[in-house]
Amino acid sequence: MANNAYPQLTRIFQRLSHFSHLSAIAGWDMAAMMPPGGSQARGEALAELGVLQHQILTDKNVAVLLDAAQQENLSDDERANLREMARSYNQAALLPESLVEAKSLAGNRCEHAWRTQRKNNDWAGFAPNLKEVVRLSREEAKLRAEASGGSRYDALLDIYEPGMTSARLDVLFADLKSWLPDLLQTVVDKQASRSLINPQGPFATESQRDLGLEAMSLLGFDFNGGRLDVSTHPFCGGVPEDVRITTRYDEDDLLSALFGVIHETGHARYEQNLPRQWAGQPVALARSTGVHESQSLFFEMQIGRSAAFLKHILPLIQQRFGNQPAFTLDNFIAWSQTVERGFIRVDADEVSYPSHVILRYEIERALIDGDIEVDDIPGLWNEKMQQYLGLSTEGNYRNGCMQDIHWTDGGFGYFPSYTLGAMYAAQLFQAARKALPDLDSQLAEGNFSPLFSWLRENIWQHGSRFSTSELITRATGEDLNSRYFREHLTTRYL
Amino acid sequence: MANNAYPQLTRIFQRLSHFSHLSAIAGWDMAAMMPPGGSQARGEALAELGVLQHQILTDKNVAVLLDAAQQENLSDDERANLREMARSYNQAALLPESLVEAKSLAGNRCEHAWRTQRKNNDWAGFAPNLKEVVRLSREEAKLRAEASGGSRYDALLDIYEPGMTSARLDVLFADLKSWLPDLLQTVVDKQASRSLINPQGPFATESQRDLGLEAMSLLGFDFNGGRLDVSTHPFCGGVPEDVRITTRYDEDDLLSALFGVIHETGHARYEQNLPRQWAGQPVALARSTGVHESQSLFFEMQIGRSAAFLKHILPLIQQRFGNQPAFTLDNFIAWSQTVERGFIRVDADEVSYPSHVILRYEIERALIDGDIEVDDIPGLWNEKMQQYLGLSTEGNYRNGCMQDIHWTDGGFGYFPSYTLGAMYAAQLFQAARKALPDLDSQLAEGNFSPLFSWLRENIWQHGSRFSTSELITRATGEDLNSRYFREHLTTRYL
Repeated sequence: MANNAYPQLTRIFQRLSHFSHLSAIAGWDMAAMMPPGGSQARGEALAELGVLQHQILTDKNVAVLLDAAQQENLSDDERANLREMARSYNQAALLPESLVEAKSLAGNRCEHAWRTQRKNNDWAGFAPNLKEVVRLSREEAKLRAEASGGSRYDALLDIYEPGMTSARLDVLFADLKSWLPDLLQTVVDKQASRSLINPQGPFATESQRDLGLEAMSLLGFDFNGGRLDVSTHPFCGGVPEDVRITTRYDEDDLLSALFGVIHETGHARYEQNLPRQWAGQPVALARSTGVHESQSLFFEMQIGRSAAFLKHILPLIQQRFGNQPAFTLDNFIAWSQTVERGFIRVDADEVSYPSHVILRYEIERALIDGDIEVDDIPGLWNEKMQQYLGLSTEGNYRNGCMQDIHWTDGGFGYFPSYTLGAMYAAQLFQAARKALPDLDSQLAEGNFSPLFSWLRENIWQHGSRFSTSELITRATGEDLNSRYFREHLTTRYL
Repeated sequence: MANNAYPQLTRIFQRLSHFSHLSAIAGWDMAAMMPPGGSQARGEALAELGVLQHQILTDKNVAVLLDAAQQENLSDDERANLREMARSYNQAALLPESLVEAKSLAGNRCEHAWRTQRKNNDWAGFAPNLKEVVRLSREEAKLRAEASGGSRYDALLDIYEPGMTSARLDVLFADLKSWLPDLLQTVVDKQASRSLINPQGPFATESQRDLGLEAMSLLGFDFNGGRLDVSTHPFCGGVPEDVRITTRYDEDDLLSALFGVIHETGHARYEQNLPRQWAGQPVALARSTGVHESQSLFFEMQIGRSAAFLKHILPLIQQRFGNQPAFTLDNFIAWSQTVERGFIRVDADEVSYPSHVILRYEIERALIDGDIEVDDIPGLWNEKMQQYLGLSTEGNYRNGCMQDIHWTDGGFGYFPSYTLGAMYAAQLFQAARKALPDLDSQLAEGNFSPLFSWLRENIWQHGSRFSTSELITRATGEDLNSRYFREHLTTRYL
């Protein structure tokens, strides 16, 4: 048998990667640069490209080549690449082109309208668009579930976090629910006795931007291969060679843009340090959204909110915004580590954050499995917010169920990644500390490079060579469990 | 015979248009946003898309459909669209895929490196890249010339200005050369006796940007469907629904960014007002680069440098930069209409501009026809600059033969469009004045809308329905001639 199926596949996936490049940049542009009038034409152009990518990936010859390549003599890395190719093929081949195109169009329309509807608290305008997205996402989930044999929601979850199931999530989240509410209450009570001085704004956008750029430099972002811009909903996009992160500025808020930038810098460094020797191949891509979030949360929470990092960043803040009573080191650290129940997921501290995720997980699972409808969302949201965080979102769609971009383009199954990421991050940080005996003193000196080398070696450079379980087990000596996350929160906040 | 070849063709061209959309936005991004490290991956992604577009357009079935559609019952507009489809097919089908891809890659590489090489006056670094682009452009010209039966250079010229030949250009340019040098000398002598006060900078970039945006508004740019950004070499890109213009700022220069913006606004309004009912079809595209340049020069020269417009813009300048002795109306108008021999084409006044174009035309024609080599360019450039404008560019590549972006990605045949555009613009302005008896008083009141309606009706809305000759004859009552350009220059400057 000719040993040439695998090389043929690498050419096909290289081609797909080129088209993904254009799609990623056009998508970034849509969120960060495009004027509203360009929306329809862009949506159509991206849908056309999506259909093409789908056609190339699901061509019958790809299935034949995948089978043939299994019999070929491949290295371990090539075999891992072949496994990811097959996964990619199977994910795509389940969906008819018409569904791919319809979902892309409906998602673009819903997301674009959402950008103004959210500002206007316009649930009535948003709901019909979302219903169409949900209808198509359910159709997608049904087709995927028929193939995988699992539940409809699990079939979507698997797109983002391969190997994860709602059965396992239920266990992990049940564990969190068993100790987190008490911990949250204890921390809130403890912090209630502090007398803190709040920083006084305004904090000029331009200076916030400068500060963000300096933090990116400190954290090793490669500006030769990336940019920082503004968008309504911050994200990390682009391609490994040219990573585009975005943030948004609020002149009344000293830290939300900064920590948003630090979060996206974690995503960006993962992308910028993926294995270049496999560029264009599926094995060179990030392992999963959960692992991706583990990197952003490693940067934002494990590093960013640590006393050591806050000590580093304070003089940079004083340089830009002058001195004020809030900027004594103790006050600044205490204030930066404030735990507070709030409406907005992306502004939440790390102790209350899992509640935001569990709420969304429970709603989106029910929505995809057909147990509830779009019209039920605001009521359920309000109910669960009351239950988990003691807050009412009645009539407050803007800061309630319309706050996130994920559902607008059918990203159901993504939300659990955030809390998986927080748990992975805590577990990874503990492992790094074990491997690097001087880590704490290095961080106190602002010497991040040993830690980044550890991440590069244990996570970044592997791309998708291993399963998530294997990657985490290799890096930390055990599979995911919530113990290190609990220890981290207890140590920092109690 | 089934009457369905034409509808099949419209679907193919619609698809191509979606891909052109992504290519245009990724191209804009490359010039205005992309960090240097993204260059190689972007070049490869765009080349991949270029190959795909080429494959779709030159598919054998397209030729069959084009033949079949000729026999179908079509409206005049559909027949015009079919003619443009066939033109597009014939342009593309002559080139093998490998050449298209090689030229795209070599062009991206040369252009990207040029951005820093130009700053460093690095001809030695630039020349090898340019040689590769020239080699591939000659190959392209040879294949095109074999099919058209004309000269190699004419075959490239026809891409930009369909119907134009170097024989006709030689006549038009010979005419210009017969009276323009004397006119230029007379104007320069006349102006030498003026005692002008020069505006004193610096003129802050941010205020220049504001001023440009206000001029764009005055001139009807639709910001719902476009943006203004910065790039090394200003251009108008994007798509009709989302037009991206760029400029560059020099804080020592009050007007170059402003008039650059006005120039690109002319391009942009043409794009923004192309016939939307045919969106995605070749007939909906701009007629030619010469007609495109006629719109930018109509805005920049016919409107922008007129005393009426300068009178409008002066208070806006004073608002942003304060008052100073140079800002009396008479001094400002006289200074803004200064004619001066200079090195830089894009900064040239309209009297010396044609010399820059004729120089480039003569060099690029000889280069493509194989009469000279890349290594001859700096010497020839210097020689012709001495001859036409009395200036030496010896050793000054930056402001000599490395100043333009056009050749870096193989845009040979484009330069004549600028001077064709200047002549079209003058002829169109005269026709508009005839059709609108109150035009001068309308312009003096800042009422541009009758003039823009005239342009929309006579040029913009027609897209590519007519040949350039027919378009100009319908709008002005006669085919292109240089009489109106001469009259315009004489009236304004003598």
